Amino acid sequence: MAPIRRLVLDVLKPHSPSTVKFARNVADASGVVGVNAILLETDREVQNIRLVTEGEAIDADEVERRISDLGGTVHSIDEVVAGEQTVEPRDQPQDWLPP
Amino acid sequence: MAPIRRLVLDVLKPHSPSTVKFARNVADASGVVGVNAILLETDREVQNIRLVTEGEAIDADEVERRISDLGGTVHSIDEVVAGEQTVEPRDQPQDWLPP
Amino acid sequence: MAPIRRLVLDVLKPHSPSTVKFARNVADASGVVGVNAILLETDREVQNIRLVTEGEAIDADEVERRISDLGGTVHSIDEVVAGEQTVEPRDQPQDWLPP
Amino acid sequence: MAPIRRLVLDVLKPHSPSTVKFARNVADASGVVGVNAILLETDREVQNIRLVTEGEAIDADEVERRISDLGGTVHSIDEVVAGEQTVEPRDQPQDWLPP
Amino acid sequence: MAPIRRLVLDVLKPHSPSTVKFARNVADASGVVGVNAILLETDREVQNIRLVTEGEAIDADEVERRISDLGGTVHSIDEVVAGEQTVEPRDQPQDWLPP
Amino acid sequence: MAPIRRLVLDVLKPHSPSTVKFARNVADASGVVGVNAILLETDREVQNIRLVTEGEAIDADEVERRISDLGGTVHSIDEVVAGEQTVEPRDQPQDWLPP
Amino acid sequence: MAPIRRLVLDVLKPHSPSTVKFARNVADASGVVGVNAILLETDREVQNIRLVTEGEAIDADEVERRISDLGGTVHSIDEVVAGEQTVEPRDQPQDWLPP
Repeated sequence: MAPIRRLVLDVLKPHSPSTVKFARNVADASGVVGVNAILLETDREVQNIRLVTEGEAIDADEVERRISDLGGTVHSIDEVVAGEQTVEPRDQPQDWLPP
Repeated sequence: MAPIRRLVLDVLKPHSPSTVKFARNVADASGVVGVNAILLETDREVQNIRLVTEGEAIDADEVERRISDLGGTVHSIDEVVAGEQTVEPRDQPQDWLPP
Repeated sequence: MAPIRRLVLDVLKPHSPSTVKFARNVADASGVVGVNAILLETDREVQNIRLVTEGEAIDADEVERRISDLGGTVHSIDEVVAGEQTVEPRDQPQDWLPP
Repeated sequence: MAPIRRLVLDVLKPHSPSTVKFARNVADASGVVGVNAILLETDREVQNIRLVTEGEAIDADEVERRISDLGGTVHSIDEVVAGEQTVEPRDQPQDWLPP
Repeated sequence: MAPIRRLVLDVLKPHSPSTVKFARNVADASGVVGVNAILLETDREVQNIRLVTEGEAIDADEVERRISDLGGTVHSIDEVVAGEQTVEPRDQPQDWLPP
Repeated sequence: MAPIRRLVLDVLKPHSPSTVKFARNVADASGVVGVNAILLETDREVQNIRLVTEGEAIDADEVERRISDLGGTVHSIDEVVAGEQTVEPRDQPQDWLPP
Repeated sequence: MAPIRRLVLDVLKPHSPSTVKFARNVADASGVVGVNAILLETDREVQNIRLVTEGEAIDADEVERRISDLGGTVHSIDEVVAGEQTVEPRDQPQDWLPP
């Protein structure tokens, strides 16, 4: 099957280990060349981060295993790019209209 | 007829198979060089994703067949690019005015 | 007269033929190098699409004839670019002010 | 006096001749290399279009004469660029604040 | 003192002379390589335009004298760039927050 | 573990030392090539700044130690980039929808 | 300590000397290659301007001394860039959410 080039995950994690540790650990997964983690929300017990992983052929199973090994949970898969070339998402006119 | 260079589909799918599997499988369709799938909405039974496929000559029938083989339904065709060159959509002033 | 380099049309069409067929058919018109079609609105009987055609010297009459041969109607001409060079539209400050 | 490099006009026109004819005709004016016409508003009798003309030394009088020969009226001059180089407009912070 | 590279003025002017004449005349000022004039507001007696002048060493006094010779008034100085290099303005997070 | 390439921190600091001193001091941390500090909020006792540090291999512990040596507190870790390449965050459609 | 590459100041100044004089005078400070000054607000007695200074090694003390010599007051330090390379600020998702 076509290789995965980008994987964006919505992750719930405890406060510790820190987001720094999460990002560095996931960046060591096979096929990953870089990771971006931004904080979306924080409350007393958990943090909600968005984890973007990029590479030529990301091992998605290893990425998810590393997240759960660090105590995190994948809440949703928000974006996937697969194939020989990176394809960007497209806006639609209705995206920016009030519902 | 002119070749298809981009096809953007609004797809309803069950939670399983995952979006990762969807994107990789569609990326293997004839004439497709890459796929982007973003999650638009999720509820208990189904997920709504936007699937962007790009290539030099996309086999639209095979793309739709792969989607339905995976249990998905094409809800609407949101964007099509056809021809020798890729043409981008145009905004109109009324697009960003309140209705 | 100066050649047409871009033509943006607001088109009403029946659900069938599909937007894929529309885009590919119009892309075969004389002087057209590419077509972009996005879905603006859909209801039970008709679909409203925006059709962007680009080229060095678009045959506007053939584009409109192909649209009507496929059962579509040109609701309005939303943008026209003519001349030796492509000129982009300009925003005005009042465009983004509330009315 | 310094040459005109861009001229943006707010034009009222009857439905016929079409915007296609307007754009092509104005693009033939002396010193004009390209024209962009977008539709701003349409009602039963008239259409309101924004006409952008670009060139190295636009003959503004000929542009206006061609518009009136086609039955159009210049409602306002919305942007003028003059000189050896093209200068873009500047936003001010108050532009995007509520009034 | 450091040379002026950009000067943005908020100008009130009578309807005549036209914005075309204003822009061309100011573009002839010493040190100016180009002028952009956009219409901000118009009422029965006056027009409010934003005049952007760019150059390597703009003679600000001559620019203001030309404006007043044409019957215009500088309502405010909205942006000034001075020095060996052009520096762009910076947004601050509070710029796009409701007051 | 993979190196840290960007670290964005939400920092609370007393008015003195100034943001200038903070930025310069943190920029001297090991593996840091540059720092950006913007003011988010200010009140009588404290200031809230966002501190962006970039480099090939940022020593996150030293960055945090320098901040606390200057009397600051890290309120949250807002973004982390780790790996061989810099990966940018991704927007999701729900980011710009009303909640 | 690491050199300052950008300094953004929120400045209150009397109407005279003009913003032109302010920008040119500050641009002569040691280590400054260019200045941008935009008008944020004006009332009867004072003007509020945002002053952006850029350079390889800005002498922040001289910049502040020049501002106060011209009768201005630094109301806040809004952005500081320090180090070998220029680092841009980062948006966070919460920046564009309603509070």
